[in-house]
Amino acid sequence: MENQKNYSLTEIGPMENITRVILRDTLSLTGAEISANRLPAGKASAFAHSHKRNEEIYLFTAGKGFFWLDGAIIPVREGSSVRVSPVCVRALKADESEPLSYFCIQVDEGSLVQATRADGIISDVKPQW
Amino acid sequence: MENQKNYSLTEIGPMENITRVILRDTLSLTGAEISANRLPAGKASAFAHSHKRNEEIYLFTAGKGFFWLDGAIIPVREGSSVRVSPVCVRALKADESEPLSYFCIQVDEGSLVQATRADGIISDVKPQW
Repeated sequence: MENQKNYSLTEIGPMENITRVILRDTLSLTGAEISANRLPAGKASAFAHSHKRNEEIYLFTAGKGFFWLDGAIIPVREGSSVRVSPVCVRALKADESEPLSYFCIQVDEGSLVQATRADGIISDVKPQW
Repeated sequence: MENQKNYSLTEIGPMENITRVILRDTLSLTGAEISANRLPAGKASAFAHSHKRNEEIYLFTAGKGFFWLDGAIIPVREGSSVRVSPVCVRALKADESEPLSYFCIQVDEGSLVQATRADGIISDVKPQW
């Protein structure tokens, strides 16, 4: 890992080799916890859960499965992107045929003030590649 | 898209078909802006940029390329995960041989209060799959 004041980097490798990797401490994140996860084929979350204050965003990158959300069962697959409010009770299950890979991003609900054009500053620097 | 009060879902499809998809408005995110991106082979960011207040986390999911960070050039590939502080000037370039796919997550620097065990609540509900 390379950890500088203004940036930090870690290599987690291909998603198909991951069980669970958490990035907050490794990358010194201050605005999010991020995990990379792979549920084995046919496996479900050990328990359903909700949150006290964190919004979660799930980005599914491979496989297929089902998302249990307050009693509704939603199919998910590569490309499914899901916001879950703190109070929502949630659990996941991978399809019997293949593992389900996803990133889970936890952030403080309501914490984003501005983004992209409102927050970005275009630099005069021209990188030399 | 399915947009309920306690959750919302959208299908962005496989990363290899994406140019740029932004999720904040689509998913009604309140704690993050998230984009899915693919830089074509050999292409670089149109400009370098920094941020006023947002920490960015880049999760590279396919391809390879280079991350210009305050003048340092760091190679990135599938599995590279990078935190960038607001003040850091950054730009990306995809390798000549293949496109570079990644998620970019913008969050308010310092906004995360607690996460995972400190924020999660295990539910007594047992989902019926």
